[in-house]
Amino acid sequence: MQALPSLPALTAPPTADQLRQTHTAISPYLQETPVLRSGGLNRLAGAELWFKCESLQRVGAFKMRGALRAAMAIPEAERFKGLATHSSGNHAQAVALTARLLGVPAYIVMPVNAPGPKRQATLGYGAEIIPCEATLQAREATLAQVVDRTGAHFIPPYDDYNIIAGQATSALELLDAQPDLEAVLAPVGGGGLISGTLLAARAHRKDIRVYAAEPSRVDDAFRSLQSGVLQGNTRTDTIADGLRTSLGKRNFHILQSGLDGVLRVDEDEIVSAMVLIWERLKIVVEPSAAVPLAAVLRYPELFSGKKVGLILSGGNADLLELLHLLNPPPAALATA
Amino acid sequence: MQALPSLPALTAPPTADQLRQTHTAISPYLQETPVLRSGGLNRLAGAELWFKCESLQRVGAFKMRGALRAAMAIPEAERFKGLATHSSGNHAQAVALTARLLGVPAYIVMPVNAPGPKRQATLGYGAEIIPCEATLQAREATLAQVVDRTGAHFIPPYDDYNIIAGQATSALELLDAQPDLEAVLAPVGGGGLISGTLLAARAHRKDIRVYAAEPSRVDDAFRSLQSGVLQGNTRTDTIADGLRTSLGKRNFHILQSGLDGVLRVDEDEIVSAMVLIWERLKIVVEPSAAVPLAAVLRYPELFSGKKVGLILSGGNADLLELLHLLNPPPAALATA
Repeated sequence: MQALPSLPALTAPPTADQLRQTHTAISPYLQETPVLRSGGLNRLAGAELWFKCESLQRVGAFKMRGALRAAMAIPEAERFKGLATHSSGNHAQAVALTARLLGVPAYIVMPVNAPGPKRQATLGYGAEIIPCEATLQAREATLAQVVDRTGAHFIPPYDDYNIIAGQATSALELLDAQPDLEAVLAPVGGGGLISGTLLAARAHRKDIRVYAAEPSRVDDAFRSLQSGVLQGNTRTDTIADGLRTSLGKRNFHILQSGLDGVLRVDEDEIVSAMVLIWERLKIVVEPSAAVPLAAVLRYPELFSGKKVGLILSGGNADLLELLHLLNPPPAALATA
Repeated sequence: MQALPSLPALTAPPTADQLRQTHTAISPYLQETPVLRSGGLNRLAGAELWFKCESLQRVGAFKMRGALRAAMAIPEAERFKGLATHSSGNHAQAVALTARLLGVPAYIVMPVNAPGPKRQATLGYGAEIIPCEATLQAREATLAQVVDRTGAHFIPPYDDYNIIAGQATSALELLDAQPDLEAVLAPVGGGGLISGTLLAARAHRKDIRVYAAEPSRVDDAFRSLQSGVLQGNTRTDTIADGLRTSLGKRNFHILQSGLDGVLRVDEDEIVSAMVLIWERLKIVVEPSAAVPLAAVLRYPELFSGKKVGLILSGGNADLLELLHLLNPPPAALATA
């Protein structure tokens, strides 16, 4: 069992000092992700864009940051019982790898309809997968049984201040590298990444604009902020599979404290933006990661002439599924 | 007109000191390309692999390194006349961008059948494109006319010691980052990259194995080294479009001085390796860049249990063309 450092568990939105402390503690266990640029994309957007590539993070997504921070909040004497969560996506892999770094078991409750590659990757990190029905109720009930049986610690996917502090460190690094950014965007699903991004940006400079980018089909964050009451989604059929979850409570309250807006984009805009990123930045991103670029291209009035940072959340695309989707190829590709 | 530093023109294979000097001079104008790893690819290869990502270099390929070094060998007083070359690929873009950095004209002789995206990218860097027939004779004759008319300096694609010194700096960086590599691979077309890689590796440590990776369909380097006489290709129908050119004379002589072998791979192995890189490393590489991984997977007896460096030469894939090719998807993808 390795000794990941310990940090106090956070019970309120992390302060600037707590974000910096989190960053110092988790950095040794992370890949240093590059910030990429493209002259062609700048011309297309009429803005100066910096892309923070969490797709090149360990497990292929920013989720590793939060999982590490949350694990560090577990008292050392209790870690041996292992980590548990429910997830069909990148969070599952992040918890599995974090448990492996700790040398303790990982128990991942995963719906039976989870994609094969994500199952395989999670097993590849040495986790035990506990199958369940594909409803939130079944996931939570199965997780409760697992935690009860094993004593493992639940690592929540987004609605948790430790997780939020971890996810915030991506924007922290982006702003360290490019301090004069005027706007920052991140995608919003459960809200771990965007709420952390907002806190990191505000800690850096008060006047940076921070936007969440969201698929129109699952626009619960947009409706929640507009109405002031946390909303759910009645459909989840967006290609941006990482953003199908609904906004968490703590995440919602942080966003209410000062997000500049939720920018909604359509499915074809997401696909076009994803293909542009593949072609111009030469990196593979998953559909969810392309949502911020889709928003920059859709709302030029907000970004024209500005220095803009975009967080590319992950790269765990199911290439087989995307090839079907790109046949016939979208217009963005045919004319690129 | 900007002041790129000047370096002496090289008239013999570059020494270790000259490689280091080249690296110091060109680095400020380059992207620092990451070295990526994948646990999954390591398991698949039964070896420890380090991937040097020239696909994330400026213009999307290592070619920028050599073009910069060659431009620095032109006396400052003569640079204003501009740069010229013939190329339908990454070298065209590298010369165009280098000329733009110098603030001088670029004249690119390009066959009429060159792919649209490469034409567009070259124009995007502000170059003038001079169309010609798609034969080597026509390219060379048209180039001679252009040089005669404009006085521009010819930047050769590979058969030149300045170019070789520039291309060598990718392996130099890889070995600086990972000094204990036991083997290094690069693809071979004209031979600029692999001859530079061999010189850099030998300068680093005598006992590093250095292999060229080559498509079986255009195996002129293999046949040249086997026979001791420079050979050409009778066909050029490989998907690895960057490797269709035949080996240059200076490149051949350098390879004769100590390459450990030319490893040939088939077309389907190239496609599978490319898809694996996209999926596991989360980066877009062009088919040529995947040839070394294809070789590592095909010849496990050479690499099993070893620390191996692979140079990913470029990322300028024509996604539209590749989508056609990947339909139906190759087995590597369906089972990944």
